[in-house]
Amino acid sequence: MADAQTDPKVGIVMGSQSDWPTMKEAAAVLDELGVPYEARIVSAHRTPDRLWDYGRTAAGRGLQVIVAGAGGAAHLPGMLASKTRVPVIGVPVQTRALGGVDSLYSIVQMPRGFPVATMAIGGAGALNGGLMAAQIVALGDPGLGARIDAWRAALSASIPEAPVDD
Amino acid sequence: MADAQTDPKVGIVMGSQSDWPTMKEAAAVLDELGVPYEARIVSAHRTPDRLWDYGRTAAGRGLQVIVAGAGGAAHLPGMLASKTRVPVIGVPVQTRALGGVDSLYSIVQMPRGFPVATMAIGGAGALNGGLMAAQIVALGDPGLGARIDAWRAALSASIPEAPVDD
Amino acid sequence: MADAQTDPKVGIVMGSQSDWPTMKEAAAVLDELGVPYEARIVSAHRTPDRLWDYGRTAAGRGLQVIVAGAGGAAHLPGMLASKTRVPVIGVPVQTRALGGVDSLYSIVQMPRGFPVATMAIGGAGALNGGLMAAQIVALGDPGLGARIDAWRAALSASIPEAPVDD
Amino acid sequence: MADAQTDPKVGIVMGSQSDWPTMKEAAAVLDELGVPYEARIVSAHRTPDRLWDYGRTAAGRGLQVIVAGAGGAAHLPGMLASKTRVPVIGVPVQTRALGGVDSLYSIVQMPRGFPVATMAIGGAGALNGGLMAAQIVALGDPGLGARIDAWRAALSASIPEAPVDD
Amino acid sequence: MADAQTDPKVGIVMGSQSDWPTMKEAAAVLDELGVPYEARIVSAHRTPDRLWDYGRTAAGRGLQVIVAGAGGAAHLPGMLASKTRVPVIGVPVQTRALGGVDSLYSIVQMPRGFPVATMAIGGAGALNGGLMAAQIVALGDPGLGARIDAWRAALSASIPEAPVDD
Amino acid sequence: MADAQTDPKVGIVMGSQSDWPTMKEAAAVLDELGVPYEARIVSAHRTPDRLWDYGRTAAGRGLQVIVAGAGGAAHLPGMLASKTRVPVIGVPVQTRALGGVDSLYSIVQMPRGFPVATMAIGGAGALNGGLMAAQIVALGDPGLGARIDAWRAALSASIPEAPVDD
Amino acid sequence: MADAQTDPKVGIVMGSQSDWPTMKEAAAVLDELGVPYEARIVSAHRTPDRLWDYGRTAAGRGLQVIVAGAGGAAHLPGMLASKTRVPVIGVPVQTRALGGVDSLYSIVQMPRGFPVATMAIGGAGALNGGLMAAQIVALGDPGLGARIDAWRAALSASIPEAPVDD
Amino acid sequence: MADAQTDPKVGIVMGSQSDWPTMKEAAAVLDELGVPYEARIVSAHRTPDRLWDYGRTAAGRGLQVIVAGAGGAAHLPGMLASKTRVPVIGVPVQTRALGGVDSLYSIVQMPRGFPVATMAIGGAGALNGGLMAAQIVALGDPGLGARIDAWRAALSASIPEAPVDD
Repeated sequence: MADAQTDPKVGIVMGSQSDWPTMKEAAAVLDELGVPYEARIVSAHRTPDRLWDYGRTAAGRGLQVIVAGAGGAAHLPGMLASKTRVPVIGVPVQTRALGGVDSLYSIVQMPRGFPVATMAIGGAGALNGGLMAAQIVALGDPGLGARIDAWRAALSASIPEAPVDD
Repeated sequence: MADAQTDPKVGIVMGSQSDWPTMKEAAAVLDELGVPYEARIVSAHRTPDRLWDYGRTAAGRGLQVIVAGAGGAAHLPGMLASKTRVPVIGVPVQTRALGGVDSLYSIVQMPRGFPVATMAIGGAGALNGGLMAAQIVALGDPGLGARIDAWRAALSASIPEAPVDD
Repeated sequence: MADAQTDPKVGIVMGSQSDWPTMKEAAAVLDELGVPYEARIVSAHRTPDRLWDYGRTAAGRGLQVIVAGAGGAAHLPGMLASKTRVPVIGVPVQTRALGGVDSLYSIVQMPRGFPVATMAIGGAGALNGGLMAAQIVALGDPGLGARIDAWRAALSASIPEAPVDD
Repeated sequence: MADAQTDPKVGIVMGSQSDWPTMKEAAAVLDELGVPYEARIVSAHRTPDRLWDYGRTAAGRGLQVIVAGAGGAAHLPGMLASKTRVPVIGVPVQTRALGGVDSLYSIVQMPRGFPVATMAIGGAGALNGGLMAAQIVALGDPGLGARIDAWRAALSASIPEAPVDD
Repeated sequence: MADAQTDPKVGIVMGSQSDWPTMKEAAAVLDELGVPYEARIVSAHRTPDRLWDYGRTAAGRGLQVIVAGAGGAAHLPGMLASKTRVPVIGVPVQTRALGGVDSLYSIVQMPRGFPVATMAIGGAGALNGGLMAAQIVALGDPGLGARIDAWRAALSASIPEAPVDD
Repeated sequence: MADAQTDPKVGIVMGSQSDWPTMKEAAAVLDELGVPYEARIVSAHRTPDRLWDYGRTAAGRGLQVIVAGAGGAAHLPGMLASKTRVPVIGVPVQTRALGGVDSLYSIVQMPRGFPVATMAIGGAGALNGGLMAAQIVALGDPGLGARIDAWRAALSASIPEAPVDD
Repeated sequence: MADAQTDPKVGIVMGSQSDWPTMKEAAAVLDELGVPYEARIVSAHRTPDRLWDYGRTAAGRGLQVIVAGAGGAAHLPGMLASKTRVPVIGVPVQTRALGGVDSLYSIVQMPRGFPVATMAIGGAGALNGGLMAAQIVALGDPGLGARIDAWRAALSASIPEAPVDD
Repeated sequence: MADAQTDPKVGIVMGSQSDWPTMKEAAAVLDELGVPYEARIVSAHRTPDRLWDYGRTAAGRGLQVIVAGAGGAAHLPGMLASKTRVPVIGVPVQTRALGGVDSLYSIVQMPRGFPVATMAIGGAGALNGGLMAAQIVALGDPGLGARIDAWRAALSASIPEAPVDD
């Protein structure tokens, strides 16, 4: 699922391999919706120059959205946002001691000038990060818009009227 | 500043008049960048049908992004997201008792399927909501992209090398 | 337990099937007290129109109280409250990352005009949601009032004088 | 406004005189809606026997709902709930050091058997406590129900379409 | 361990049987130090009259300290403090959703006039509640004071100089 | 008020002069109740040796209780508790950034063996610290016990039946 | 005070001019102790390349410690730490909505490999950041060590024995 | 690993044996980098005189840095800092009820004059405490500086370009 695809529209990046179980929900929904993406490990602290390059080249390589997940002192989404005007979506990864509030605050509380579109903590946030990326790409791709509409309609249709005991 | 503009690309909505001192930072940056927008009061609880209509008609009316600000049990951004696939940006308005953590959690912790692109609490979040909206619109408008680049460059250039005493 | 009953007085609604293990404590206490109820899944975001209809028809269908459980950005109780003057009781479902503080804030911090009667986080809140519903219904049903008194007396009588080792 | 009224249906109680600036929003909305109420100071810790008597006699005196406001280690609503099956609505009063989170947790986190219908922190919670009381009383008073509908309709109608600068 | 003892000096009370695994650490240290105590279940909400009686008779029965443990909306310690001037020590029991912060705030944030001597959350707090009770009783019992000194000295002496791998 | 008194029974200590506006509420209530005390500045970090001496000599000098107030990383109460078996009452002083939650956690979360009897944050906690000290001293001083009873009765008697508008 | 000094040993950097009222406490204590320093504005997001250069050249320019203050999503200290092995001290600047908890978490929760030596929130943290820098520099400068000892001794000597009323 | 080494440059201390599984990450990284250290248990409350001695003798014994880990009301790092000008690094150990926020606040919120260089909660903080100690020692030991550079380079080089499924 994480293999590079031809002509990716969305870059899924994460601070470490340990974020992938969370972030692959973003990849999965993009697969479902037929949006080409790439998945990369870009550590803000361990590979700062890779981060620099990723941000600087994002627009030129044709990326339309970046979905960046990180945990703890999660600097990856915000630092990418400082290097590119491509919209950056941030996914706070859940942490052991603080549940992900540290990740959330580190990502969402950006200063004027450098927005990060922050999602919920954990897997729901990762899936929604992929979906938001698709919604943005769909502004210029009516076919994708229709597929998102169908995806949402199917989700709604799947909800039963009443709960059932196990 | 809050007057309707011709052919708005961005909808700025807020739960009440009292959110406007915060949300007008979104309007101001869109004015600076030359992005047409409209500003509306849409209360999730007091005018739910207005919310319904706003969400349902957003795409058809040509809105490309919605920037929604609300405080406390802030349901406006998420409920709009459930009614439209137009990307919704959420701005948590600061609150008196809890500082805006209630607004933040109510906006950011969305379930799978309905992302809200959440900004920082308060005025910085509102400005960044407008800027993120512009970044998204710019994906299909290279001229706007250039104006954003210039805006960012000017911001960076304005930072002095050293602090000064008052 | 979750089957529809004739002439329900209480509507138990929840955002998803995954809330049922929590919310069935509300159903169980209503069963014990002989209060007819219905249990429904009404997702604020995935089935907004179902929410609309549920709220709009609640009073006319004879519902006297709604007990609504939801987790995370829990918009269901508050949005129902915006659509009906039938009293809405909110139950914050426990969440993985934040323990349910997100659910609690999203439910309890309602603005002027649209109260949600918020219960404790999790199963205790669900049972108490059912019990509060019964207490409200009992205002017009003295027999139920007597059954509640007996239920409370039995609970009190069940408390031993001293703790015992396992 | 705080004078006793003939045949009160709602009891507004609070832990101290200093809670009255908050709690009088409950009284005001009941005045608007024509619901008779009484306002009393009942301190859980300073006047525990008064609390006992208030709870024990509430149903017999014809009270249909109690709205109880308190701050800090706010034991008043929960202790009243342990003494009567009349529905108790709790209003967490804002506090200086902790903003009212202490009040909120002390009121909302009730154990199984003794629900307190908790409102938002501060004045919005007090107004909503009065309104929720009215919604409950209205279950047996169609005229009051109509007045609440009108109150809500007027609130909704008062919301302008667009924000205005000061 | 929880059996009544002749002429108890300390009353260990708790809101429910489920608090005993925590609170028996208080009993254990009192056993070690030779301080007679009694252990009782006194639920603030389920057995409010038992609480009333316990508080009212505490001084007359010769209790010198009360150690009260409770969780969630933990009203037991504070309500006992309102009924007796015997010093009340409060132990916040850990809770599932909020970790015990709810218990802590409900116990510690008492208003002027009714102090509760609050301990740490959970088992450490329970043991320390027993120990603080012993320290208070020891003010009038030099032999107990010497036993506490020895207990503390043994604790200090048990600390090795360096950590060891398992 | 802060002058040394003959044969003090209670030691009021605080980390700095800036804690005195809070801590003098402890002194005031001891004055009212006729309990001799001394007030001292003992900084855990700036005067550690003074702290050492204070703790080591407390019992020998006849102190029966220590009331210790501190803010932030508030180590004073706990370090005193490690040096003496005289009961130590801790008062968390309110702080600017965190409201006093830092003070509270630093004081209350003591490990097994070294209890600190923690009071509410701020002035209410300081007054209650003085009162709890008096309650402890009263165990060996029936006259003081009677004065406390009278103080409490007067407090209760001062509570009006109903709130009044300003 | 913020002028560059010859051959600075400590670099004081901050995210914006608005951090200077906080950070100048670091400069002031270095002035007192006679440690040469420079003060610079280096915004992680607005001037990322300046940050890169600052980190990359720090060791070569002879800086022995960096004291970095920032607020909100405070990425400056951590990103500097990723670019240099010169010890980085982080000062969380107080924020309006969240009091500085956002700053604290963004700075302190660094992943393995890139420590930031985090100080208290606000002015105390800034002064202590300067002092810690001096303590580190003093490891290779015995004269400075003696000046720090004197500074500490003077601080300790300034603490009066007893509090005084205003 | 915890055996004393000849001529230690770094003192690793912790409040109890139970902190060793966390703190040995500090030891491990110092082993990797070839920095001599000692590991000691120094309980602030159970062995206060050991703490006193450790602090007082640290500089004289040639220690250049102290890394101190503790949990809950974590007074060890701050009290050491009050006894020595040797830089003290604090590691907040994760706790059961509060996740380590209590440890963090107790360590980081130090008053002016006594900085503690605080690391992240838990194991990452312990490793980083060791690493920060090494970075400080390296200021006077170029060979160690080179080894740290290599350690960091190896860490960076170990990061793969893309995530892999398990």
